[in-house]
Amino acid sequence: MTASNTQDRILILGAGAIGSFYGAALQAGGADVSVVCRSDYDAVRANGVAIDSSALGARTLRPAQVLRSAADYQGGPPAFLIVSVKVVEGTDRAALIRDAIGPGTAIVLIENGVEIEAELAAEFPDHELISALAFVQVSRTAPGRVKHFAFGDLHFGNYPSGLSDKARRLAALLEAGGVRAVTTEDVVTARWQKAVWNAVFNPVSVLGNALDTDDILNAAGGKEFVRRAMGEVCAVAAACGHPLPEGLADQFITATAKAPAYKTSMALDYEHGRPMEVEVVLGNAVRAAQREGVAAPALETLYALMKMVERKAAKRNEAAAPR
Amino acid sequence: MTASNTQDRILILGAGAIGSFYGAALQAGGADVSVVCRSDYDAVRANGVAIDSSALGARTLRPAQVLRSAADYQGGPPAFLIVSVKVVEGTDRAALIRDAIGPGTAIVLIENGVEIEAELAAEFPDHELISALAFVQVSRTAPGRVKHFAFGDLHFGNYPSGLSDKARRLAALLEAGGVRAVTTEDVVTARWQKAVWNAVFNPVSVLGNALDTDDILNAAGGKEFVRRAMGEVCAVAAACGHPLPEGLADQFITATAKAPAYKTSMALDYEHGRPMEVEVVLGNAVRAAQREGVAAPALETLYALMKMVERKAAKRNEAAAPR
Repeated sequence: MTASNTQDRILILGAGAIGSFYGAALQAGGADVSVVCRSDYDAVRANGVAIDSSALGARTLRPAQVLRSAADYQGGPPAFLIVSVKVVEGTDRAALIRDAIGPGTAIVLIENGVEIEAELAAEFPDHELISALAFVQVSRTAPGRVKHFAFGDLHFGNYPSGLSDKARRLAALLEAGGVRAVTTEDVVTARWQKAVWNAVFNPVSVLGNALDTDDILNAAGGKEFVRRAMGEVCAVAAACGHPLPEGLADQFITATAKAPAYKTSMALDYEHGRPMEVEVVLGNAVRAAQREGVAAPALETLYALMKMVERKAAKRNEAAAPR
Repeated sequence: MTASNTQDRILILGAGAIGSFYGAALQAGGADVSVVCRSDYDAVRANGVAIDSSALGARTLRPAQVLRSAADYQGGPPAFLIVSVKVVEGTDRAALIRDAIGPGTAIVLIENGVEIEAELAAEFPDHELISALAFVQVSRTAPGRVKHFAFGDLHFGNYPSGLSDKARRLAALLEAGGVRAVTTEDVVTARWQKAVWNAVFNPVSVLGNALDTDDILNAAGGKEFVRRAMGEVCAVAAACGHPLPEGLADQFITATAKAPAYKTSMALDYEHGRPMEVEVVLGNAVRAAQREGVAAPALETLYALMKMVERKAAKRNEAAAPR
């Protein structure tokens, strides 16, 4: 175990693909990284998490502490608590976080979606909140094994705005560990910007039963529909005080059409029967539209359809559950 | 072969489940019924079409003439030409009909959807056009075999309005053959009324990957979405000069919620990889909305998504086609 600076003690909640990928980078950058993990505890305790990455080479996250519960964390509160659990309906993030922080701990949320911070900011007013968006394609392939396919940038800044010394320190650790950190003083706008793509392509890909980007954009009227729905997200963002660049939808459409056809992460979750981040990615955008009085009928339709898909999946899982 | 009245000579284009079901009823009612069929020609020629129905008992359509092509029809033009081919993209109905009619032939369209008649009325201005909606659950189970599950009513009237002596005669033959004929002087309004259900439940069921009515109505926000989308169909119908009864959407929702959960015909077509009637059921409603300047964003979203689903299915079929 390497000696480490107190200010760089990092605890990660949820050592899934995302948490392990950035944890390994932070460790490579010199931080003291521990993880709380449940299902994969034995494997991670024994061998850490092996990251298989053609871009970064093979690396292994060997946590300083592998914990079943954040309450077992030794040595005082962490400087950073990274929350990288997937936010699906029923997750009580506040309860998970409460056990894992102490005086001075900055809470780092790595999460998709919009309007995901306010609740935690209200719950933990004395803690700095760093809001982060992962642009990375990673997947947990087995207990203690993660495959890194592409990308890796982490975009972040303080919520509701600004960029603290701690946030800058986090960026330095990541960069030292080989991952690009893109810091911003306006992370909320960055979230809306990413949501323009995510709130449209993700549900649409699921609704066609795992469509890829070619099916979506090259169907009759496909581009026009995507542009209209993205325009709704932009209108909601603007109404929330976060106007996005002109022409953003067209930029996204052009870039997506140029890239080889691929399926969204939500389509992959759907195909594998995993929970989908419908609420943070789409539901929050729809609720913001309703709150701000912005018409978003395409998004509302996508959302209504996704709730039907979720209901069907829940019924199937219930039927398949052991009794 | 039974002797038959000249006025009751009927030629059916498309001896699928629907055509055979009503053909058998018309024959039982005393008509001289012939069929044009392609894929099932040998089976139908040898043994007719066996209709397995618990409601009507087992009955067999034994066509007076079984033809590969309408041009082979003997004995002068039919009094009625029943067109019961499924209307999917690429079907040239006019070309099929042109070969099968002569002076005095009434064209009977048994078809789903809205605004399906105008093109044929313009193409065949000298022929009476009877527009019919089947409320029946039937399925072709094998060449020359049809299973009748439920219902059976045929609703029809002349296009654009009225009820001719020939239409009344058709009703009498059907009733004599054990099927309920519901005649109307305003068949276009009847079509819009049926479309209120079909243009919403059919695509929605497909988009959730074969949802049943329970998944749709009992998801969070499900009923509200269905009501809103149905309201769009009602608004389009009204703009087209066919106002529908107040409260129709709620009536449909209540009736559907009370019935046991079931999948729509379009969901079944989708599950079995069969072409879907997206254009006549939904596309025509969307185009009517655009023409009349009626906002229909939920329908437009469903339509855009269905075109993506169709594109994916077409790619898959192309990949699977023999070369």
